[in-house]
Amino acid sequence: MIRSTFEAATAVEPLDDHRYRGEVLEGWDVVGNAHGGYLLSIAARALTLATGRPDPVTVTAHYLRSGRPGPVTVDTTVLRSGRRFATASATVSADGRPIVSVLGTFGDLSHDDGDRPELLDGGPPELPDPATLSQVVPGDPFPPTFMGNLDLRLHPADSGFLVGERSGTARIRGWLGLRDTRTLDTLALLTMVDAMPPTVFNVDLPVAWVPTLELTAHVRARPAPGPLSCDVRTRFVSAGFLEVDGEYWDSTGTLVAQSRQLALVPRGD
Amino acid sequence: MIRSTFEAATAVEPLDDHRYRGEVLEGWDVVGNAHGGYLLSIAARALTLATGRPDPVTVTAHYLRSGRPGPVTVDTTVLRSGRRFATASATVSADGRPIVSVLGTFGDLSHDDGDRPELLDGGPPELPDPATLSQVVPGDPFPPTFMGNLDLRLHPADSGFLVGERSGTARIRGWLGLRDTRTLDTLALLTMVDAMPPTVFNVDLPVAWVPTLELTAHVRARPAPGPLSCDVRTRFVSAGFLEVDGEYWDSTGTLVAQSRQLALVPRGD
Repeated sequence: MIRSTFEAATAVEPLDDHRYRGEVLEGWDVVGNAHGGYLLSIAARALTLATGRPDPVTVTAHYLRSGRPGPVTVDTTVLRSGRRFATASATVSADGRPIVSVLGTFGDLSHDDGDRPELLDGGPPELPDPATLSQVVPGDPFPPTFMGNLDLRLHPADSGFLVGERSGTARIRGWLGLRDTRTLDTLALLTMVDAMPPTVFNVDLPVAWVPTLELTAHVRARPAPGPLSCDVRTRFVSAGFLEVDGEYWDSTGTLVAQSRQLALVPRGD
Repeated sequence: MIRSTFEAATAVEPLDDHRYRGEVLEGWDVVGNAHGGYLLSIAARALTLATGRPDPVTVTAHYLRSGRPGPVTVDTTVLRSGRRFATASATVSADGRPIVSVLGTFGDLSHDDGDRPELLDGGPPELPDPATLSQVVPGDPFPPTFMGNLDLRLHPADSGFLVGERSGTARIRGWLGLRDTRTLDTLALLTMVDAMPPTVFNVDLPVAWVPTLELTAHVRARPAPGPLSCDVRTRFVSAGFLEVDGEYWDSTGTLVAQSRQLALVPRGD
């Protein structure tokens, strides 16, 4: 198992004012293809530098081609730099070909100017103590290799698919974090929002793999130290597409991110 | 009330291979500012031409500045043109300043190659016969001017906010269409997914306006003729943000689009 810290795995260095160099490391892949959330974190790190804003607030990635271990370049364009937010786009390329395109708005989520209206119609999923649950470990080929860098502990009611027993509901809950640190920053959140297993593994559909077309993450807050409680579900598989909606709560019970992705449903034949 | 057909209001003409000219028409605004979904439809129309694909599949807009009636240019970049999908970005500018930035994947939703796995955990909202409901008409300043081009009929349980009686639930259901045609194409869907009134008007929060930072729409299918049944709701108002999730069903009960937006919650003071 090849491990690296999240910070090293997503490091970028400026080549000029708009262009950054990163490296897709070994060990962050799904059957040889770089994990989508991980690629988004690399792009977003470059965008924090390009915009001068530390936190992604809303970020969308469209996946164009598979990424492989090796150098990547991130070309950025700042579209607007305002008082509170900056919006910018990025294209991650490998061997001169774009693999991921990103559009995002960035800001600084360290300021809590308090006393804002609040409505919470939902909360973190009820999960057993993580110490009582086993870590998901990479297999060959599944669970995927990038799990070696993550600490995922699934709700027992949702983890039967690992041994061929589907729950019947397209939902997966669990604890999620990095193995190298208990403290997730908002760039690490962008890897987390794509890291739960496919929800459709828990229903009886002839679906083996669900390539992501697009992923959008909304980051509400910087997570407190400790694992995230995650709840991802799919309500509609139709017309060859499915959505995956995720909610991510930190150890203090604060909603730190929401995600939605659109994935393709290849025919099962 | 100044009316125009959707097609005329979103028309674009090519200036060169990558650049299009459009015009924000009078009558498609909210207190003088061009409606966000309408601006997205203009951008998406340019992108259908730039990519040679008729339908948006997943499109994200980030709103940078207000738009006013008058000419706009749409600069497009095709990032990848594949067999089934093409991904491209667009920036809508007025007076040389970007007002909306868009990233989208386009395809052709006319092909139904049938027999795909399906899961539907939900359906269209139950709504009274639209003939028994009154159209929302523009007021001064609310309901907003663009309603003059739309045919919105709200569920009676969710429309009390119009007369100062909030339902207590951040949800709004209703029938929605254009006044000029019963047939909505997938570009018109992009206006529809931003056209329901703000969900928070139905809850007791000190929130007067909720500017959209980002809007993502997933288009599943071309709508059959007739009004859409729409169901939009907000579950989390926190940290100065809220999400609005929408589902849009056509007259045959087919899920044609899902939307999510991230909006700002200015303090009520």
